[in-house]
Amino acid sequence: MARTVSELGEGGVIELVASFLPAAPAGELWSGDDAAVVAPGANLITTDTMVEGVDFDLGYCDGFDLGWKVTAINVSDIAAMGGTPSRAVATLALPPSTPVELVEETGRGLAAAAREWHLGVVGGDVSSAPQIAIGMTVLGSAAAPVPRTGARPGDLICVTGSVGGSWGGLQLLQRGLRDEAPRLVRRHLRPQARVDEGRRLAELGATAMIDVSDGLAIDLARLMAASGTGCRVDPALVPVDPELRVLVDLGLARGDELLRSAILGGEDFELLATVRGGADVPATVIGEVTEDRTMRFGDEDLEELGRTEGWDHLRGR
Amino acid sequence: MARTVSELGEGGVIELVASFLPAAPAGELWSGDDAAVVAPGANLITTDTMVEGVDFDLGYCDGFDLGWKVTAINVSDIAAMGGTPSRAVATLALPPSTPVELVEETGRGLAAAAREWHLGVVGGDVSSAPQIAIGMTVLGSAAAPVPRTGARPGDLICVTGSVGGSWGGLQLLQRGLRDEAPRLVRRHLRPQARVDEGRRLAELGATAMIDVSDGLAIDLARLMAASGTGCRVDPALVPVDPELRVLVDLGLARGDELLRSAILGGEDFELLATVRGGADVPATVIGEVTEDRTMRFGDEDLEELGRTEGWDHLRGR
Repeated sequence: MARTVSELGEGGVIELVASFLPAAPAGELWSGDDAAVVAPGANLITTDTMVEGVDFDLGYCDGFDLGWKVTAINVSDIAAMGGTPSRAVATLALPPSTPVELVEETGRGLAAAAREWHLGVVGGDVSSAPQIAIGMTVLGSAAAPVPRTGARPGDLICVTGSVGGSWGGLQLLQRGLRDEAPRLVRRHLRPQARVDEGRRLAELGATAMIDVSDGLAIDLARLMAASGTGCRVDPALVPVDPELRVLVDLGLARGDELLRSAILGGEDFELLATVRGGADVPATVIGEVTEDRTMRFGDEDLEELGRTEGWDHLRGR
Repeated sequence: MARTVSELGEGGVIELVASFLPAAPAGELWSGDDAAVVAPGANLITTDTMVEGVDFDLGYCDGFDLGWKVTAINVSDIAAMGGTPSRAVATLALPPSTPVELVEETGRGLAAAAREWHLGVVGGDVSSAPQIAIGMTVLGSAAAPVPRTGARPGDLICVTGSVGGSWGGLQLLQRGLRDEAPRLVRRHLRPQARVDEGRRLAELGATAMIDVSDGLAIDLARLMAASGTGCRVDPALVPVDPELRVLVDLGLARGDELLRSAILGGEDFELLATVRGGADVPATVIGEVTEDRTMRFGDEDLEELGRTEGWDHLRGR
């Protein structure tokens, strides 16, 4: 019989997770008290939670993936302000029947992601629930945070990396085909947060920025709405993950559908930013900001695209 | 038919909750971006979550209670460091069938508690889940945070307010007898966080401090274990909530059981601190810290009491 967390209790689970994490530096006091003591200086805060059966399925991911991904998606929100992550607290809701091994894997995933982004996980909370949920609150700092509201007509719109890979990976995972394209699968289970690119874009004077969590279509529409502007995007310029061709080869998608799936799929955690023309950005320019509030994606309306096909947690598709 | 949150969607729920909260002061950027921007300076962080069916039952509490209590229990952790709360993010997991009215009540409860403790709720996250969960991460600051580890032999042990009231209120709520003692019921549903008392105890040189969330017996044992000390508590000095007599009158408890229930009941959110003798503390002295690590509660062993009857989320009783 696998050991379950009901044998460890709350304190045991906290100790187990903490055992994978480094100790506090001098002057700070991490796990083990009513609140953690950290060096002051953070001016950014964000929080995001992943719920079993809604945001992930343990049929195709493990504890390491959960620990990694919850860190990445929160760090990505700090990156989208042009900020540097510093400290975090994690929350874990577990059914008492959860295997101890899953908690160990989660601790390892949290620790690996924390190392990747130089983040101190300083504490957290364990509770009991009918299904697993893992959440995090991350602190960070930026000298001049880049909001969603600053895009101006004439700014160029750019996106880091490529989009659609996470969606492609999910299609393979859901069909038991993870070995067909391990890199796509990693894009879904072990996303990267673009901290360096976000900082660079901020230094280059990015006027507005957002991370692509719900799909480029929805997130670009959000960015334009927040700024009170429109846009004109050239679909041919959108950097679709080239490995999505695997889905066509496997008969899971038509070649002419890939672009649409790539901008609606979500969870790419790339950064979408607006910058003045001429800047040498670490990103692909896909269009420009317009004074006219219409949001054009080639011949289509971006808002309409997102509304009809985008994802909403509470509404479903 | 009552409207449900599936009609509002994630964005609508966030807007609805935010509508009850004040706007950001100049220089800060709250809800609506990837991360919130706050004034730097916080050096304390804590997080705690309440899960439906584990930590609360909507059969006897409403959304206002949830919003209030999740704030109070987190602020209490800041108070237990001798700190002042400043900013917070909230998380809300909701089944799509949740009535919109419950979200409105929760927003009102959050707003009222945030006003009470001068806390800015700067953002949050809404997700879908099979049952309701509400969580919060609170930032705060303290010039000299009081840890759990500093108690020294000879220090006096003191506790603010009285204990057992929350347990008593829960007994009444579970039996549909809330009108028998509304003040006890409030102690359970609308707890206070002892921020002023915590600050005062820190100023008076408290050597160690913890809030009473799992019961005086367990939390005092934790404080002593963290400090590497023992204690000698005089049971006759423990400030048991006098209104618990109502439970005896109603035949729900024996008079000679009240003290035991009061120290094992939990959720009082009073502060338990150790101080040097002579300080004029805003709390009741109940015993003293000993070098001998035995934890005596009259003739009984405090650790044994907590182990056999205390509450653990993952283990149950």
